[in-house]
Amino acid sequence: MRTIRIGSVGLGRLGLAHAENIATKIMHAELTALCDLNGDLLNRTADRLGVKHRFSSFEEMIALEELDAVCLASPSGLHTKQIAAALAAGKHVFSEKPLGVTVEECKEAEKAVEAHGDRVFMLGFMRRFDESYMYAHKKVMAGEIGKPVLFRSYSQDPEKFIDGAIAFAGHSGGQFLDMAVHDIDLARWFLNSEPVSVTALGGCYAHPEFGQYKDGDNVSCLMQFGNDAMVFLFAGRTAPHGYNVETEIIGTKGILRIASVPQKNLVEILDNGGVRRECSENFLERFGSSYINEIQEFVYCILEGRQPGVTVYDGTRVSEIAYKCKESFELNKQLRF
Amino acid sequence: MRTIRIGSVGLGRLGLAHAENIATKIMHAELTALCDLNGDLLNRTADRLGVKHRFSSFEEMIALEELDAVCLASPSGLHTKQIAAALAAGKHVFSEKPLGVTVEECKEAEKAVEAHGDRVFMLGFMRRFDESYMYAHKKVMAGEIGKPVLFRSYSQDPEKFIDGAIAFAGHSGGQFLDMAVHDIDLARWFLNSEPVSVTALGGCYAHPEFGQYKDGDNVSCLMQFGNDAMVFLFAGRTAPHGYNVETEIIGTKGILRIASVPQKNLVEILDNGGVRRECSENFLERFGSSYINEIQEFVYCILEGRQPGVTVYDGTRVSEIAYKCKESFELNKQLRF
Amino acid sequence: MRTIRIGSVGLGRLGLAHAENIATKIMHAELTALCDLNGDLLNRTADRLGVKHRFSSFEEMIALEELDAVCLASPSGLHTKQIAAALAAGKHVFSEKPLGVTVEECKEAEKAVEAHGDRVFMLGFMRRFDESYMYAHKKVMAGEIGKPVLFRSYSQDPEKFIDGAIAFAGHSGGQFLDMAVHDIDLARWFLNSEPVSVTALGGCYAHPEFGQYKDGDNVSCLMQFGNDAMVFLFAGRTAPHGYNVETEIIGTKGILRIASVPQKNLVEILDNGGVRRECSENFLERFGSSYINEIQEFVYCILEGRQPGVTVYDGTRVSEIAYKCKESFELNKQLRF
Amino acid sequence: MRTIRIGSVGLGRLGLAHAENIATKIMHAELTALCDLNGDLLNRTADRLGVKHRFSSFEEMIALEELDAVCLASPSGLHTKQIAAALAAGKHVFSEKPLGVTVEECKEAEKAVEAHGDRVFMLGFMRRFDESYMYAHKKVMAGEIGKPVLFRSYSQDPEKFIDGAIAFAGHSGGQFLDMAVHDIDLARWFLNSEPVSVTALGGCYAHPEFGQYKDGDNVSCLMQFGNDAMVFLFAGRTAPHGYNVETEIIGTKGILRIASVPQKNLVEILDNGGVRRECSENFLERFGSSYINEIQEFVYCILEGRQPGVTVYDGTRVSEIAYKCKESFELNKQLRF
Repeated sequence: MRTIRIGSVGLGRLGLAHAENIATKIMHAELTALCDLNGDLLNRTADRLGVKHRFSSFEEMIALEELDAVCLASPSGLHTKQIAAALAAGKHVFSEKPLGVTVEECKEAEKAVEAHGDRVFMLGFMRRFDESYMYAHKKVMAGEIGKPVLFRSYSQDPEKFIDGAIAFAGHSGGQFLDMAVHDIDLARWFLNSEPVSVTALGGCYAHPEFGQYKDGDNVSCLMQFGNDAMVFLFAGRTAPHGYNVETEIIGTKGILRIASVPQKNLVEILDNGGVRRECSENFLERFGSSYINEIQEFVYCILEGRQPGVTVYDGTRVSEIAYKCKESFELNKQLRF
Repeated sequence: MRTIRIGSVGLGRLGLAHAENIATKIMHAELTALCDLNGDLLNRTADRLGVKHRFSSFEEMIALEELDAVCLASPSGLHTKQIAAALAAGKHVFSEKPLGVTVEECKEAEKAVEAHGDRVFMLGFMRRFDESYMYAHKKVMAGEIGKPVLFRSYSQDPEKFIDGAIAFAGHSGGQFLDMAVHDIDLARWFLNSEPVSVTALGGCYAHPEFGQYKDGDNVSCLMQFGNDAMVFLFAGRTAPHGYNVETEIIGTKGILRIASVPQKNLVEILDNGGVRRECSENFLERFGSSYINEIQEFVYCILEGRQPGVTVYDGTRVSEIAYKCKESFELNKQLRF
Repeated sequence: MRTIRIGSVGLGRLGLAHAENIATKIMHAELTALCDLNGDLLNRTADRLGVKHRFSSFEEMIALEELDAVCLASPSGLHTKQIAAALAAGKHVFSEKPLGVTVEECKEAEKAVEAHGDRVFMLGFMRRFDESYMYAHKKVMAGEIGKPVLFRSYSQDPEKFIDGAIAFAGHSGGQFLDMAVHDIDLARWFLNSEPVSVTALGGCYAHPEFGQYKDGDNVSCLMQFGNDAMVFLFAGRTAPHGYNVETEIIGTKGILRIASVPQKNLVEILDNGGVRRECSENFLERFGSSYINEIQEFVYCILEGRQPGVTVYDGTRVSEIAYKCKESFELNKQLRF
Repeated sequence: MRTIRIGSVGLGRLGLAHAENIATKIMHAELTALCDLNGDLLNRTADRLGVKHRFSSFEEMIALEELDAVCLASPSGLHTKQIAAALAAGKHVFSEKPLGVTVEECKEAEKAVEAHGDRVFMLGFMRRFDESYMYAHKKVMAGEIGKPVLFRSYSQDPEKFIDGAIAFAGHSGGQFLDMAVHDIDLARWFLNSEPVSVTALGGCYAHPEFGQYKDGDNVSCLMQFGNDAMVFLFAGRTAPHGYNVETEIIGTKGILRIASVPQKNLVEILDNGGVRRECSENFLERFGSSYINEIQEFVYCILEGRQPGVTVYDGTRVSEIAYKCKESFELNKQLRF
């Protein structure tokens, strides 16, 4: 099997993880180029991972003929343009979410993808590649829990990261766009259906700083989907125990809970705190293997000439829904889709 | 300490449990009289529990001078009248929920209670007397979880009781009034606050029979409370695993979960189903000791000349809220309080 | 049904619990007399519980004609004599373990019991009356786990009670006689078989004070039983998390674990310690309802003229086995029965 | 960094996993050669993994000059000879356990390793590379649980693999050598101490076929270690729930439990079996990432010119202990080391 040569842009925490994964853990792939504005970090990382080509310009990187594909882990505001440019340059594209920072941008990305149907395009909804979520999804699709009644999903960041979250609050798009998008994606994936109404709530329970951006530190929404299923989502920045992503799907014949305890590992500690499990600290710890699985799938899609299960339209749809949630939250009223 | 002589009316499942508890497990109390229309059952039970006086008429029972108090476990439609009559006859009154089947009836009950301020009146919100709920409540009141952010509570009846639920559906008042009232009571008790808006959803996911009563077999609602806390309630009739009453209170500094696994006991089974816990089958199994604790508290209130923490106004308020939830569900729209 | 009038001796922690239970929670029973050398405590307790007769002399108490039965919660060294005296006085006898402080004393107790076969005699192996243990026992007896392979049982006292344990160490008989007896009783009850060999180990891991009594602060033993089952018991004084009594029965077709997490209640706490359960603090918290159930069974045995499932011979056998464990520990060698 | 070229021998289940890991998941490594007697399997695997050199003869493989190292996943009886031959040929050696099928063979292996001190030698005690075991080990070494009191470890294979286990029983060396060796290794690793006495027990509880090899289908042993710690090991072939490897370390200040529920993933299922976790099915599912981690460490040792933490002497010592356990089991008596 041939080797897919990938150029990756962005060396933030997640970008760094993607780069390391491509360089060392993805079969049939090679990290051929790296791009970042921070020259020091770029060189150190490229040296460490044995990467041939280094760029401070994305445009220059995608001009590199030997590249088969790019991995976008750049700031959200650049995604749409970079997707279009890379596709136009004939590259396959893996992009971190979101597709764009507005629904209009998402639509532009759709057009770019449609114009290059022979290129693989994949969006980084990594939870779909987590082994526990995949296992649960298979059971739901097989009808093991009957008809879905309630889909509940939480995304909570630990309180200890609050300073970063506040610093980033003006650019994040708010809890629904920054955090709940993954839960929205899961809801659509598990339910095979679209929302028809939403009521969003929330507030600044610990950190009034979010208020200036019309955001809260903790928010939630209740949606009804077209297949009648109820969907309750909760996103928060103040989890006392760790990075908590949990999902429950209540069906008429069975219930599945994924990660209702966000355990760090299989160690149970019995001490003066009682019997306890330590928790995952961040998304890299919790979803480390999902990030590998998704890029591996991207590479196989290229090798086998097929498109991944998650499409550009999923990206747009999730953004549209998240914006509607945000609007409901800001207006403090129920909205219809 | 003197002995409180109690007459109990109604020998359904819960009434029978109350009768047995009063006769055998409540300190400083005596089951002095029993009342039920089913003569056979009445006599058998009275014989077994050594009860002196037996009545088919509630009016005759409360005319019995030696009675100090009554316990009402009669059909819901009789509660308001029986509360008023018993108080008028000078008896202390413990009544099962609801206070009345309409908000107007609840207001009548309020008047009766106000007119007899020297009598103890208590409503059967037994979850407040469950040891785990009491333990959690104490922690929340002590500020251990910081400011409450999200209160989530489920009340699920096992699917295996569905025939009874369908048969009773025309008289139950619907999921919000029949089941979610306990969760509404808990929300108010834990949050010390009142709802300001509600969006309710749901449907008939497995049993269309509920539809003819404008009810669903599974429903939920999202409320905002005056203290900003979000409240998500879910009530269902199709739990595959057992009788499931669970509550989560997410605060800015800690999170408490009560009975997130509705374990039957402390036995864990490892077999070809994996590692599993069997579950509670019904409310009597789960809340057996709560029913004892609440009547014991009622008796102490009488002996010590004080009123219980849960008042007649709590009963009215919970009914008002449940009716608003029901209205939101039927109209399929968000409502304000 | 008639009321059984019981006199109880000993007002230590467990004696006090028995007295309260008999006075207030046991059906068809009355706490008619109390006996203790501490006059103040005796009077306060008798007043509080409404007990008519008070004694500082056990002999005088059993001379009280109206008494049907006695409950012995006196120091272990008095059990054998008090059993014999009470039976000779025509009383039914419930005695806390042990039957006697030597095997010879146990044999004397056997003779006393045999000489009064029309009197009910019961020994306080309360774990047999715990709902979880009863539930597990029923499953094992029904063959649900197949043939028993390994029986593992722990009895751990919290480190925080270590001062009392050290003070009492000279009189306790050591870990095997003081703590492991309950596990030995369970092993015989679950396996319906007797040990054929034992190897005991242990040491003073944290508290050298136990060494002067040839005892350890933590000990264990491995036994083979006649039915081939392996039995591993562990008893310790230094549990960091609470009062831990757990049992596992591995069978060829299923495995049961009882209380592998000694949870205080159904509350789960999520905070900076992770996700945790607080633990039981002591035997009264863990086995509160077992103490009630066992006395209730004692009373029903009297009322129905039958003997309880646990016999005087169980008491002797358990002591013999515990002494053999102790001998193996002291000699540091394997012994045969 | 240079790439370590590895030749792997043996394409049984574990050998196949090693080959795939080396070919695709190990950094700085290349699967350069494969060796197996089954030509079809050899070719299919080599094709799939892009392996240049294929051998049916181990001697020929190690004659390949470009090879830096070998991975031995051949039948146990060949290990000692292959270790010696590969080292003599100048290769670094990773060998699956055991070092040899007798203690004498282990000593031979020691000599071979000593004679080639500049070559890296590593034995496949993969549990030391499991993230949960590593996390627990770090805590124990840091003194977080105080002085170790009891080390308990189980290795249970699922009943559904019993046919294979019976077929292999004549060659396995018995439960202690085949299964408990990993627990023995863990005990020594966690306790930094050696056993001084052992009492082993067991029997054929479900499958008499093991009896002809003087083996049992379930066995256990209780050891005392030089640091006074008690060690209880259990190994069985009839686990009803899955592949169960669990360990508990009780210390004077804390207790750690690793994998007390051998959960397959983070999915919890609520259905008519109650609330349950499905379990790991086999060692590859449970220890998949440990097998990667250990080979990665082997490669880093070669690159960095150092020896791994687990030495050839650990291999011999574990075998000696396992043989002593086996002897104690066969003689049914306690033995000293």
